[in-house]
Amino acid sequence: MKKVNQDLLNERRKCTFDIGELTTLIDGGREKTRDRKEKEEIMLSKTSDGVSEEYLSHKEKFENAIKQSVIIFSLVRRLQMEGKTTISNYRDVISNLLRSTTLRDGSPLGLHYIMFMPAIINQANDEQQAQWLERAWNCNIIGSYAQTELGHGTFIRGLETTATYDASTKEFVLHSPTLTSYKWWPGGLGQAVNYCIVVAQLYTNGKCYGVHSFVVQVRDEETHEPLPGIKVGDIGVKFALNSVNNGFLGFDNFRIPRNQMLMKHAQVLEDGTYVKSRNSKLNYGAMVFVRVVIVFDMVNYLSKASIIAVRYSAVRRQSQRISGEPESQILDYLTQQNKLFIAIAASHALRISANKLWDNFNTINAELLGGNLDRLPELHALACCLKAVSTSDTASFVERCRLACGGHGYMLSSNLPITYGLVTAACTYEGENTVLLLQTARFLAKTWQQVASGESKLTPTVEYLKTASSKSIPEKWVNSVENIVNAFQIISVRKISSCVENMQRRVSSGSSFEDAWNMSSIQLTSSAEAHCRVIILMSFYEEMQTCAKNVSAELRIVLNQLMELYSVYWALEKLSDLMQYTLITSEDVEVLQAWYEDTLRKLRPNAVGLVDAFDIRDEILQSTLGSYDGRVYERLMEEALKNPLNAETVNYTFHKYLKPFMQGKL
Amino acid sequence: MKKVNQDLLNERRKCTFDIGELTTLIDGGREKTRDRKEKEEIMLSKTSDGVSEEYLSHKEKFENAIKQSVIIFSLVRRLQMEGKTTISNYRDVISNLLRSTTLRDGSPLGLHYIMFMPAIINQANDEQQAQWLERAWNCNIIGSYAQTELGHGTFIRGLETTATYDASTKEFVLHSPTLTSYKWWPGGLGQAVNYCIVVAQLYTNGKCYGVHSFVVQVRDEETHEPLPGIKVGDIGVKFALNSVNNGFLGFDNFRIPRNQMLMKHAQVLEDGTYVKSRNSKLNYGAMVFVRVVIVFDMVNYLSKASIIAVRYSAVRRQSQRISGEPESQILDYLTQQNKLFIAIAASHALRISANKLWDNFNTINAELLGGNLDRLPELHALACCLKAVSTSDTASFVERCRLACGGHGYMLSSNLPITYGLVTAACTYEGENTVLLLQTARFLAKTWQQVASGESKLTPTVEYLKTASSKSIPEKWVNSVENIVNAFQIISVRKISSCVENMQRRVSSGSSFEDAWNMSSIQLTSSAEAHCRVIILMSFYEEMQTCAKNVSAELRIVLNQLMELYSVYWALEKLSDLMQYTLITSEDVEVLQAWYEDTLRKLRPNAVGLVDAFDIRDEILQSTLGSYDGRVYERLMEEALKNPLNAETVNYTFHKYLKPFMQGKL
Repeated sequence: MKKVNQDLLNERRKCTFDIGELTTLIDGGREKTRDRKEKEEIMLSKTSDGVSEEYLSHKEKFENAIKQSVIIFSLVRRLQMEGKTTISNYRDVISNLLRSTTLRDGSPLGLHYIMFMPAIINQANDEQQAQWLERAWNCNIIGSYAQTELGHGTFIRGLETTATYDASTKEFVLHSPTLTSYKWWPGGLGQAVNYCIVVAQLYTNGKCYGVHSFVVQVRDEETHEPLPGIKVGDIGVKFALNSVNNGFLGFDNFRIPRNQMLMKHAQVLEDGTYVKSRNSKLNYGAMVFVRVVIVFDMVNYLSKASIIAVRYSAVRRQSQRISGEPESQILDYLTQQNKLFIAIAASHALRISANKLWDNFNTINAELLGGNLDRLPELHALACCLKAVSTSDTASFVERCRLACGGHGYMLSSNLPITYGLVTAACTYEGENTVLLLQTARFLAKTWQQVASGESKLTPTVEYLKTASSKSIPEKWVNSVENIVNAFQIISVRKISSCVENMQRRVSSGSSFEDAWNMSSIQLTSSAEAHCRVIILMSFYEEMQTCAKNVSAELRIVLNQLMELYSVYWALEKLSDLMQYTLITSEDVEVLQAWYEDTLRKLRPNAVGLVDAFDIRDEILQSTLGSYDGRVYERLMEEALKNPLNAETVNYTFHKYLKPFMQGKL
Repeated sequence: MKKVNQDLLNERRKCTFDIGELTTLIDGGREKTRDRKEKEEIMLSKTSDGVSEEYLSHKEKFENAIKQSVIIFSLVRRLQMEGKTTISNYRDVISNLLRSTTLRDGSPLGLHYIMFMPAIINQANDEQQAQWLERAWNCNIIGSYAQTELGHGTFIRGLETTATYDASTKEFVLHSPTLTSYKWWPGGLGQAVNYCIVVAQLYTNGKCYGVHSFVVQVRDEETHEPLPGIKVGDIGVKFALNSVNNGFLGFDNFRIPRNQMLMKHAQVLEDGTYVKSRNSKLNYGAMVFVRVVIVFDMVNYLSKASIIAVRYSAVRRQSQRISGEPESQILDYLTQQNKLFIAIAASHALRISANKLWDNFNTINAELLGGNLDRLPELHALACCLKAVSTSDTASFVERCRLACGGHGYMLSSNLPITYGLVTAACTYEGENTVLLLQTARFLAKTWQQVASGESKLTPTVEYLKTASSKSIPEKWVNSVENIVNAFQIISVRKISSCVENMQRRVSSGSSFEDAWNMSSIQLTSSAEAHCRVIILMSFYEEMQTCAKNVSAELRIVLNQLMELYSVYWALEKLSDLMQYTLITSEDVEVLQAWYEDTLRKLRPNAVGLVDAFDIRDEILQSTLGSYDGRVYERLMEEALKNPLNAETVNYTFHKYLKPFMQGKL
């Protein structure tokens, strides 16, 4: 290992808490840390051959991604065969994959684990699972998940692909009747996978029964050629995710056997009789699962971005704050601390909320399987807003970290631009954020009407809607996180109640419900966001109460500072709400601002320790600016020298174009 | 021309104003519109051969960019030779280049016009101009501008490259003493240009005189080989700007003749005597010029993004708002209008401010050349904050437009991701935004101290600091844009005065000035932003008063709606400031929100007309989603089919990697 940058050494020496203790807390226990490290060791044991992916063409990126993915997935398979990973703990399978991947712009085989297998696990009946699951788990077949079409994403009922049952042959006929009915976006579908789940409008006995899922083989297992009747290809270059091989897919009256409709819930019998699902909402579980995965994924990216930006800011020196003195580490500028520390705090806040969502998911899913659907709407509403808020917050904090690294943060080799590209994609996929917030708002509006009508039993995450309105926040309340949480509860209550009032006013003055909803929709999204802020702030606050008993005094101090920073940051961001709905005064605002700045100052000495504790290895971080040793400038130059353009001193275009032009001959 | 999308035809039919009239207003008169169109016709006369740049590797992108740039620049040269463009109207030269470029990810030769020639025009003495200017203007030599180094961007005094005068040979010796002293970032420097301006620490007679500029030949004019003593190459892949060929450059005791130091201002005589500049601030003009260009560039990108997103939102239909009815155009959703219309309004607001900045620049530059430096600090402060605010607003509005286009906005073929990449780069280059805001804040703090000490003569753009504090805003003031402008003036005054007070308090309680400044820096940047908001809002408001007399009644109505939307949008964004510093009540806030939503509703029928009026041709817009005819889905598929990956049905990696893996042999 090369020499570690002196400034980073100094920072680590200054750290007031045990970095390993925080790492363990983040992982969820000593056992889990050991397990993670062991798996990382295996996953990183086969190294790539050092191609700098960023210099490749789109096609070469795909080819490299297949090569790398096969290495990674064979290691995953090795873990499976050694019993270190089992299908019964599926979230761990996925989070290992996401955390330890070295494919920085996504994988063409990722959807196989994230969507194809879960669909089979959740929607296939026993017979179908016997047919598909083991082959999928062993990667003998690799699948994708095809729902979105060129013309439809959000409005699933509007999907145009048809699956028409032909009782005479006991087959479904898949067809793409229009250009806009082409499937568009499924990861890996372009050239990598040979199977996929297709979501299509089911027709049988002349009637449409809405969208259902089908297992469809799209390529020959031996030759990989698309099967007759299938048009498939890669959709092209994107902002990021360029190793993912997102594909399009069209069907020309393509036939599949009846038993390839996933029939755990609804069924089509041999004679074409449609048997509907006992409960159409049972599929919600899978959707929630993916959203939980997304929130954890955001935590991961946010940690990465903050590691990169904080270490770089400790190494980078710029300007003499005091004439004659050495240039300052940019981490010493208050404006820089303002840009970066919130990312660290948010990573903790979102992790805690994601854990809570995961616990909720498990509890409610268990109730669900037992036939109790009471808490499903709550879970759905919670997953919607947490997915929306976590992705949009993460996108904005990652971008803030990137911009805080100035020009060097604009280099792909910093890994910040692609990180942003990946994170901002999550604002759109698996439910566009505005649409998701409106779904949460719909739940909140209903809940508020229950509160108004005196209903006494509310589900846990919205319980506060009933109690908060009666809470009184004292004047001069700006002195504790608890009061801030209470204030956010009041904001949330006031927002949703005002939305409901506005809606009712509009309806009673003649608007249709739909128009009233649309006219109120800006405020409804804001109300859903406010609810989500309450959940995140409450979770952080409650978690600190619990963990206060289990961590060392040194660590507790720092964690409390992060919680304070996070709470005060959002109080300042939502100041206009606080001013509208609480008794906050102008002096209180100054107190908040001073509290915020003071907390930045307190966190400053531990900044590098805090990001070290995220414990993301250089091979995974893949950043010239963020490596543990801080050799920022050396790495930037080394990467530049790998540029194929620099292999020749003069490019052929000089002789062919530039010289004739400069000599006036063109 | 293919059939135009029916929804777009309907939108255009609904438009209540004359689109051509607005285009003329934007261009600045009938004459200018004609001139622009004529030049566009010439610039687009040689078409490219249809390579889809996005599928190329980094090296191929460079090669394609050289090929395309040579076509474009030979057309520019043709315009020059026909006398249609002259050096005396340099801003037009540049804005034509920027507006009509078909190189969507930047040009390797752009800096020649934007920085190399302006440096020669502004800093070379007559003899040097005779030597270089005509050759540069005719593109016989092509140059870049090398200031930023690996280790220094913001802090120019910290640059490490040295230029040491050797009186014995009458040469300067250029040298890069460290890795961090390598020049890093200059556009075109990697492989394209053969000359550049180098900014280096000047040493003569054993003494350092700080940074000065030198004309340096880096490559042989015949062979294009780097000259001995020069290390030069491309720095690698970036977020965007990947056709720009940004380079690095290091010197190993590289010698240039004495007269290659630009000597219009400071000089080194043959014997090594240093003659200092009459005024060190004369170079500020060039810096301001570049910032004006950037603001105009932002207007251009914001117009493009809003055209793409608005046309797409008129074509895209999603969800049945009312059951049984056809799916709605997404432009009919209030949340979508909320995302998009502000971008249209901001494009107008920023254009008006940029024009004003340009007028100020010309006036003050003329005074400057006459020896009057009084208004230079004001101009500098204005350019700093307008550059910072316009780039960061544009970045956020462009990204808002991109996200509003959902998944399809994530496709590179939409041109939205690259547009964002280009715009966010401007937040960093030519003065990092936080640093620039602090420069404006420094000017404001000084000005406020003048106000406090009773100074009566303030320069025009800060005049309001004196008058605003005595203005009284009535209660229930939320009913006119004029009142909103006044309220923003009060916010600005209160913010800067509070910063100055805090600074003074900190200094008198023992802090050094530097520490007090750092501790106040978050608030100082916020104060500079507030000042900038006043300038932009005032300019928009005043411009509307003037143009009200010159435009048709129909257009006036729409322009007023845009001004209202812009003002109310920012009032809502800065609500906490309004609540802190004015007598705004909770009911007023509801009035503002209703006013905002009502204005969205009023603008809705004219949305497509408004973006059509930006009059950006499809060849320049280069967007699958934004073309005039609205053939969105057809274009997306056409672009996907150009993907080289789709040329074969099976990629070699299946046989080499994927199949062995799936069969368990890997």
